[in-house]
Amino acid sequence: MLDLTADVRTLTARIVDIESVSGGERALADAIEQALGDLPHLTVYRDGDAVVARTDLGREQRVVIAGHIDTVPIVGNVPSHVEGERLYGCGTSDMKSGVAVQLKLAALVPEPVHDVTYVFYDCEEIEADRNGLRRLAAQHPEWLEGDFAVLMEPTGGFIEGGCQGTMRIEVAARGKRAHSARSWMGHNAIHEAGRAIDILREYAPRRPEVEGLRFHEGLNAVFVSGGVAGNVIPDECVVTVNYRFAPDLSAQDAEQHLREVFADYDVRVTDVAPPARPGLDHPAAAAFVRTVGDGQARAKLGWTDVARMSELGIPAVNYGPGEPTLAHTKDEFVELDAIVDAEKRMVGWLTGVDADTAAAAVADAIGDVDKG
Amino acid sequence: MLDLTADVRTLTARIVDIESVSGGERALADAIEQALGDLPHLTVYRDGDAVVARTDLGREQRVVIAGHIDTVPIVGNVPSHVEGERLYGCGTSDMKSGVAVQLKLAALVPEPVHDVTYVFYDCEEIEADRNGLRRLAAQHPEWLEGDFAVLMEPTGGFIEGGCQGTMRIEVAARGKRAHSARSWMGHNAIHEAGRAIDILREYAPRRPEVEGLRFHEGLNAVFVSGGVAGNVIPDECVVTVNYRFAPDLSAQDAEQHLREVFADYDVRVTDVAPPARPGLDHPAAAAFVRTVGDGQARAKLGWTDVARMSELGIPAVNYGPGEPTLAHTKDEFVELDAIVDAEKRMVGWLTGVDADTAAAAVADAIGDVDKG
Repeated sequence: MLDLTADVRTLTARIVDIESVSGGERALADAIEQALGDLPHLTVYRDGDAVVARTDLGREQRVVIAGHIDTVPIVGNVPSHVEGERLYGCGTSDMKSGVAVQLKLAALVPEPVHDVTYVFYDCEEIEADRNGLRRLAAQHPEWLEGDFAVLMEPTGGFIEGGCQGTMRIEVAARGKRAHSARSWMGHNAIHEAGRAIDILREYAPRRPEVEGLRFHEGLNAVFVSGGVAGNVIPDECVVTVNYRFAPDLSAQDAEQHLREVFADYDVRVTDVAPPARPGLDHPAAAAFVRTVGDGQARAKLGWTDVARMSELGIPAVNYGPGEPTLAHTKDEFVELDAIVDAEKRMVGWLTGVDADTAAAAVADAIGDVDKG
Repeated sequence: MLDLTADVRTLTARIVDIESVSGGERALADAIEQALGDLPHLTVYRDGDAVVARTDLGREQRVVIAGHIDTVPIVGNVPSHVEGERLYGCGTSDMKSGVAVQLKLAALVPEPVHDVTYVFYDCEEIEADRNGLRRLAAQHPEWLEGDFAVLMEPTGGFIEGGCQGTMRIEVAARGKRAHSARSWMGHNAIHEAGRAIDILREYAPRRPEVEGLRFHEGLNAVFVSGGVAGNVIPDECVVTVNYRFAPDLSAQDAEQHLREVFADYDVRVTDVAPPARPGLDHPAAAAFVRTVGDGQARAKLGWTDVARMSELGIPAVNYGPGEPTLAHTKDEFVELDAIVDAEKRMVGWLTGVDADTAAAAVADAIGDVDKG
């Protein structure tokens, strides 16, 4: 049983101690469902080991606050423990501290200025086709409706807006086999692939500004493979290219661009994940940046689940108290102050007041809960 | 028991029918040793499944006539059979027709104009360190002494002089890993390897004339490999380069050249086989080209065992009745006329007369043997 009246730091530790390695989230999902089910201002839905809880206050706008409840495999780092100002344990940064903030918000802010949908989902740390947010988007898209979304992934307390898309293509150079003692009888596909690599080396990546954030693209070979035998001129060489593209391009735009860049080659798209616009021109987002980020936000360059929200038409950002560089490490921890700070700022946003006033409100609210 | 008085075509078929896949040459080596041991003008040596037989007439010059007695694995193509003008079967072209000519010469020409050393060796078709000629060169170099050598490998009846050397090197480009979403934090080793491939593409291979033969070099990538993961800027990419070099360069010259060409890269030599000079400026060789090749010879561009003779200081050529493009094929055959032609020309060379006179001599000799 989760006690949502507990301090957010204590709640984080409690959640960390309920093991929830990807595929084994049931106990934690049950606990979350039960705790949220006790709150009269929320309607709670469940799908597998994902839990969704919504206010329905008839606000003009609805925001989605989401986080995954699974972790990478435990390596002797559960249960959690406190050392000084840090809470150590599997998932402390990625991202049970964020989940704890979500739960506190759900309990502390019964009448937010925007309607809120809290999403707790499973299987984010494993193969994409088991991702719980993906499943919800496919099976219950109405549960995820909203005008703006925050994913509470570890960002070290920065707001990271949108995300770049990623596309992988295979650029195949063709040749003709021959014995290497008579190389002029053939045509060397590796030599031909060298021209494609020249294109990559000379490529000037864009750094477009999209909705106020500066993105930074990249076009890179990530694999190259060619060769038949030590005495044979090879007839095929494949360069696998990864394009990271800013959210002013769609996946279709990106593919078209690559087909133009490699017009002389066979191009096959092997993998694509669309980008997400940051959506910071949206009123709810602007208030978010002002209250939570002190007016600051930066572009997210890697691909994250915000792109799934974007596919549903919901601009999204990452923001969370965890430290991203500690994710998936044995010595993962989270700064206890960072959790409190994130809670305070998020409450400020949802209550429409500045962060410090919100902090006082948090204290009051806890008093209310204690009385309740 | 091999009957060396038989027609060379019949003898070829007989030898093909004694299976001798590499490592299983004992029966054929025994038969050859016994047949040659019956000839009073020869001294016969044996090492493993290699047989060496020499005349000792005190001639000014000694020539070596060599061939391997093993074959690639049989694929339902033994015993041999005749169809029209062709003898079909495993080893007919590569190179039991050549071996049959060697045996006929040993029997037919008891008093050659040069002393002759006939070499029959094992394990040519498999890994180099089991090669019988290599073993003889290491353990009995005195058996192989000579001024000029002919290897009766399949050449379609052309004289192919010397051979090009072959060297394989790994050219390694280094970089620095980074996440491909922030590629500018790293340095892409595949892109760097592209510069090495540019060098290959722009390289102008030499076509030097060496002792009257036109060689043709080549410098080619035969493998390329790099990449860590689909989202990682790779920190290493290795291009495997095969250099085929003419016999006016030593292996040391070749390595130095490659280190200059790829001065900006880590270069590691992984494999080298030295070239062989054709030696066609040698008197015995000049007579060989005149009598056997109607004055024509061409450079051997691939690497062959003539290079082992060259390492012993003996210039060498390839010449044989087999068809090289049929070697190692299921439908391997040899033109029956080609075997007879090769026998006639070789007898002409060893008896110091023109080919047609030699043909008559062959007929006489056969008559003598018949009487004997």
